[in-house]
Parts: sequence; C-alpha cells; structure tokens
Amino acid sequence: MTATILTVGDEILIGQIVNSNAAWLGEQLGLVGVEVMRMETVGDDVRVIQQAIERGLETSDLVVATGGLGPTHDDVTREAVASSFGVPLVFQPGVMVEVERVFIERRWDLPEANRKLAEVPEGFEPLLNPKGTAPGLWGERKVAGRMQCLIVLPGVPYEMKAIMREHVLPRLLEISDTTILHKTLLTVGQGESSLAEHLGDLSDVLTNGISLAYLPGAGIVRLRVSARGDDQEVVRAGLDRAVERLRNDLGDRIFGEDGDTLEGVLGDMLVVRGLTIAVAESCTGGSVASRITRVPGSSGYFLGGVVAYDNRVKIRQLGVSEADLEEHGAVGEPVVRQMAEGVRIALGADIGVATTGIAGPDGGTPEKPVGTVWLGYADAQSTYAVRLQLSRDRVINIRLSTTAALNLVRRQLLRTDRLGASKQNRS
Amino acid sequence: MTATILTVGDEILIGQIVNSNAAWLGEQLGLVGVEVMRMETVGDDVRVIQQAIERGLETSDLVVATGGLGPTHDDVTREAVASSFGVPLVFQPGVMVEVERVFIERRWDLPEANRKLAEVPEGFEPLLNPKGTAPGLWGERKVAGRMQCLIVLPGVPYEMKAIMREHVLPRLLEISDTTILHKTLLTVGQGESSLAEHLGDLSDVLTNGISLAYLPGAGIVRLRVSARGDDQEVVRAGLDRAVERLRNDLGDRIFGEDGDTLEGVLGDMLVVRGLTIAVAESCTGGSVASRITRVPGSSGYFLGGVVAYDNRVKIRQLGVSEADLEEHGAVGEPVVRQMAEGVRIALGADIGVATTGIAGPDGGTPEKPVGTVWLGYADAQSTYAVRLQLSRDRVINIRLSTTAALNLVRRQLLRTDRLGASKQNRS
Repeated sequence: MTATILTVGDEILIGQIVNSNAAWLGEQLGLVGVEVMRMETVGDDVRVIQQAIERGLETSDLVVATGGLGPTHDDVTREAVASSFGVPLVFQPGVMVEVERVFIERRWDLPEANRKLAEVPEGFEPLLNPKGTAPGLWGERKVAGRMQCLIVLPGVPYEMKAIMREHVLPRLLEISDTTILHKTLLTVGQGESSLAEHLGDLSDVLTNGISLAYLPGAGIVRLRVSARGDDQEVVRAGLDRAVERLRNDLGDRIFGEDGDTLEGVLGDMLVVRGLTIAVAESCTGGSVASRITRVPGSSGYFLGGVVAYDNRVKIRQLGVSEADLEEHGAVGEPVVRQMAEGVRIALGADIGVATTGIAGPDGGTPEKPVGTVWLGYADAQSTYAVRLQLSRDRVINIRLSTTAALNLVRRQLLRTDRLGASKQNRS
Repeated sequence: MTATILTVGDEILIGQIVNSNAAWLGEQLGLVGVEVMRMETVGDDVRVIQQAIERGLETSDLVVATGGLGPTHDDVTREAVASSFGVPLVFQPGVMVEVERVFIERRWDLPEANRKLAEVPEGFEPLLNPKGTAPGLWGERKVAGRMQCLIVLPGVPYEMKAIMREHVLPRLLEISDTTILHKTLLTVGQGESSLAEHLGDLSDVLTNGISLAYLPGAGIVRLRVSARGDDQEVVRAGLDRAVERLRNDLGDRIFGEDGDTLEGVLGDMLVVRGLTIAVAESCTGGSVASRITRVPGSSGYFLGGVVAYDNRVKIRQLGVSEADLEEHGAVGEPVVRQMAEGVRIALGADIGVATTGIAGPDGGTPEKPVGTVWLGYADAQSTYAVRLQLSRDRVINIRLSTTAALNLVRRQLLRTDRLGASKQNRS
C-alpha cells in the first residue's frame, strides 16, 4: 500500500510551525508497512485542498490529511473532502453528542460554531477523538477497479496521534493482512559505525523480513528491529531471535528499549538498589542535575548537586584541594575525583558523580583542547575518573558529557552487581 | 511572487528527519515578500523529482528545491533539474576548483565521485557554497510569456541557509523591487493575549505596509514588525516608528531583539555592572544554572549553584531553617528567601536567585496545587520572593520557572539602575 501525507495550514507555509506531524505519520505508516510516496502542504483554501486530495489519490492508494477540521471559518478541510468525493456534508447527531460530552466535562461553553464538528461527508465514517472534539474521518471508494482510501485527522498533534493509534493504525495493519512487529533497543557510549563494526555480520538473523535500522542521536543510538511476514508466530520468533542476538552481542551498551530514557533507567536502578546520588558539575553547568530531575519521582533518589563553575566553589563547597587546582588545573583527574568525593560527602549521598572540562568555544590549550572532559565517580568503596575527548561545539559537548556522566553511574552499578554475584558464587 | 518549496529525500518520507528546512525557507521567503503556496516532499527518484519541479513551476513563479545535490549515487536532483528544463549537464572546471579548495582546506581525500558536484545544468548559474562543497543552482526561463525561476540548494541545513542568505534572498529582494524590513522584539513575562490587550489599538503605526506578528514560545513572546513598500526611506521610517511605539508601550517587558536570548542579555547586564550570580534550585533541578552556562563566557559572572532537591541539602548547604521547613513546607516564601540568601553567602556572589515549587505530576495539595512555584531574589541590599501559579505539566513548569527566575534578576537589575539614577537626581 502506498500513501500521500497531506498537511493543511497556512501556519506551516509561513514557517511558523515545523511540520512534525508529517514526520510522525511517515514513520508510523512505514511501521505498518505503508510506503509514503509524497508529502504535500497546502494553505487553508477549499479548492487547493481538494486538488491536493485528488492529486494524492491519483498517485497512491491512501491519503492521510491533517489540519483544517476545527470549528472556525478558516477550517475548510471538511468541505474540500466532501467536494473531492462529490458528496454532501451531513450533520450526525451521534457525533454531536460526543462533542458536547467533551465540552461538558471540561465545563466549557459550547459555541454554536461547534455544530460544524458533527458534519460528516456522506459515506465517511467518523473516528472518535479520544483527546479532543473534532472527530477524524475515514472514507473509501472504488475508482476504475482500484480502492482509494482518504483519512482526515485534526492538526493538533496529540489529537492526531491518538486517533491514529486508536483507529487508523490497527485498521491499516488489518487491511495489509501482514504482521509487522518492532522492537527498539537503546544503546549509549558508542557511535553508529562503531556499533555496526562490533555487530559484524548479522545475515543469519536479519533474514526473511527481519531488518535493522540505526537511528543515531546525541550520544545515544537507537537500534530498531522490524519483522514482517504472513505468519504471526514466525514473525514473532524472527524478531525475538534478532533482538536476542543484539542483546548478547551488545551487552551493557544497551540501556533500555522503546520509550525508555537513560535518566529514567538510571533512576529505576537507584530505586531498586535503595541508593541516593548527588552531582558536582563544572562544564555541564547543571545539565546533569536537570536531566536527572526531568524524571517524575526523582526526588526519591536524587539529593541534589553543586554547580561548581568557579574554582572557589570547588574549594569551598566540595573540598577540592587548592594545591591540586593550581598544579593540575580544574580540568584533570585529581580535581574531578575530589569533586565526586566532595559532593558525595557534603550532601550525604551514596554516590557522587562529577564533570569538569572545556566546553568551548574558548579556553582550549594544545594539551587540553576544547572538548576535553573529565568525569568522576565516587561511592563508599571506590573513586575513579575517566577522560573524554569530544567535539569543538559547546552545546554538543555539554550534551554528550551529560549523557556520558549518567552512563558512567549506570555502568558502575552493573559492575557492582556482577562483583557481588561473583563474590556470592565464590563463598 | 509565489513559490513552491520542494524537499527531496527518502529520509523525510520515512519520518527519520523532521523537515525543518521547509519551515525555515517558508519564513525567509515570506520575509522577502514571496508567498509560499505549497510545500512538497518527494523521494530520491529522478522522474518523481522532475514531475514535482514541473508541478511547482506550473502553479507558482518560483520553485526552491533542497536535497539530492551530494556526490553519492542516490543524489539525483541535478539530473531531474536538467531533464525538467530539457538541458544537458555540463562539467564546469571553475566550480571544480572551488570544490577542490574545500577538500584541500579540510585535508580530506577527494573521491572521484565529487566531480559530479561541478556538473551544472546548461544555462544554470552555480551559487557558491560558503559552508560546504555542493554549489546551489539558479535557473530561469520564460514559458508562455511568464518568467519561471528554479533554485536548487543542498539539503544540509547550514549549507542551505548560507547559500540562501548570501545569494538567494538578496537577489529575490532585488527582483521584487520592494523594500522589506523586519525587527523582532523579544518579550518575557506576559502571554500573547495579555500583550495584545496591553498594546491596544496600534492602527496609527500599523499602517501603509507595516504589520505585526506575535510569535509565542515558552514564557517568551517574540513580536515581529515588518515594513514593506517602494521607498526605502519611507519603509525604514515606518518600521522605526512602530518599533519605537512598541518599546514605549512595553518598556521592561522587552528584553532584547532579533537573535538575543534572555540568558545572554542577563549575562551582558551582569558583566557591565561587574556583578556575580549564584543559583539555588529545587523545582528547576539545575535548569537555571544550565541555561546560564549555555552562554559562552558565562564563567565571567556565574560562580555556580546548589541544586537543593532534598530538604537536608537546603538545610546543610544553604542554611535554610529546619523550623521554617517544617512549619511552612519547602514550597513557600520563608524557604525560598533563605535559599536565595544562603546561596549568595555560601558562594560569595553579589546576587542569589532561588526556585522551589511543585513541578508535578504528583505532590500537589489543595493549598499548593501542582504548578505552585516560589522564586527568591537576594543581594546585599534586599531579599524578596514572588509566587507563580503555572501549569499541570512537569516539563512546562520547569521551563517556565527557569525563564521567570532569569527574568526576575533582569527586572531587579533594571529597578536598581532606576533607583540609582533617581537618587543621583535627588542629590
């Protein structure tokens, strides 16, 4: 099945909004086996929308259109849909009841203009909106023996996504009569090409409709395994086999799957082990603390941190030795170790983690160029430091150091677990 | 002049990349008076690209295409451009010299495939790429008495933008024979509708081609004034008059213009006054420090901060009174004042700023619902606190509190300036 994604809205054409809806739809349609051939964006004009719908249906089996379904006078997609199928708009009292229900729940007044939301092109099926008022629309017709399908969704991203997830994607999967399954493994600490090299030849598991996509991000690479075929059991088994293989080959490099975040996974690990953490940040300037506290419930294990930008703060708040600062500079092993130890003791945490480095754009030297970063780790048993050499870009250096600091703690917790397990085995 | 924006690339269709190029082009073309009618995205296929170019030139005066200009075999936009104009590709040694120059500067090997970058459709003008190797292309033709213009740019955003800024936008402005000027004022602390209400009737300055656009963001609203007309002096005067009026009406609500950031403006203010700052963060969890340290050179005025997530950290590191914590809770005026004072003294800064609040999703009470945030300010002369009531969303609450904390310091510095000036006047 092939598709055209049509976006309606003047605000996209003038660049006020980036068309993230189209990207999300492109990915989701691909995941249920629909190939997107074209994306098009047009303004809020009935005739232009109608032409775009017709152009889309001529060149693909399916058109997914978003935007222009609201109650105001510049929302004209409904009219364009009706015209393109040559049918009238019909008021559906059943849909109006649903619209009214949402207004009553939210204790909003119901302006008369909202009657429009219950007008449905004849022959179209309304798709209930779980997150708002305007329903989606699903229409089909046969032209010259070929089925054409037109799906229309609101432009508000979370409403559009809710209708897609609840109504459209399951039905498209059913129509395609194919089983398609996905699993995304999240890795950290290694780049795309280095991961690929490490994995080597995967042809024994990437076979018969099993494929692997590398989706790189800042310090994190997502590996998406997709499996596709007619027999659901075979597809599931193929997916499991490939995922198992990646897990075995990559081990600790994988920190989670699907919607996980590194800070969330680390948080769960700390909760399970009953440990608390504190951070001492120089070059990351509060970014490690900020990532940790993005997680709801992080107050359960995160005590706090010291952003020690100035050397006096490193000395006074963290107990870093003035002599070491003078001898080795703020960016180096002795200082980062003392920062990690210092914050652990000052805040009374089980674990201390620290960053210091030259984020840029200035401050680099031949010995310590921009992008030189030291990370420190301290707990009751041990303290150590690692050196990274990152990029020349300040923003990227801060982001990569932050991810690396979170990963340093995660790796250390796993190492401690293994150590504990092997000690138990020996005793 | 009307335009179609054409994006070429499979990675857009599968949703791997959000099409931010198209949004940027839409905005920039609008700013030089070109009306974007349609945006289209197609895959890396010569015939499909050619059709899209032809469709664009049929319905608009100008097509701006991006992507598919690289050296690899899936970069086929150059071929599609040549076909759509019915001309051959011609190798231009002068262009090759420029390509080679970049490779030599970067000390890269020059693979043979890069010869392709110097192939130009006959009659097209190459547009030098200031940030990379693939030049842009500019072609014109007359069809049935109507001028058609086709501009082709690389897909790499910073290369595309550089060629637009250096070659395309100035030339489009020249062709349109119109003067178009813009000035964006950045405001903080008030929403879009509240600003509009405060500004009231602007019809005396928004006249004769002068217009105003509200561009809302998280806690920050950008006001873009555009002026358009034939006579450059008249256009400039009209723009100045409208900007002056907004400045007078909005006063301190305006923190900067065009590319400024709130943290950057605050940093400059601190540098000029020779002041240092330290932060104490609870609900913002390091986000205020992180915003401040995003600015290169922030080490000149930012000493550091304490992320006091746990109450023990508030007591031990910041000297917050245990009795006040018990009596008033961590979210309230006494604690946030003591946090601001405490961090100022502990870190030896001129100014201390503090945040404490209930970011959510949990932790709200009827008296202090999710979104309740207190900000504290302290310097050698005074200490005070303000209460905000924000949203129910954790991420939004953190972002808005951070912006509000930065703005609190900015407003206080301005107030101190005025106080100093009025004292001087009196003496």
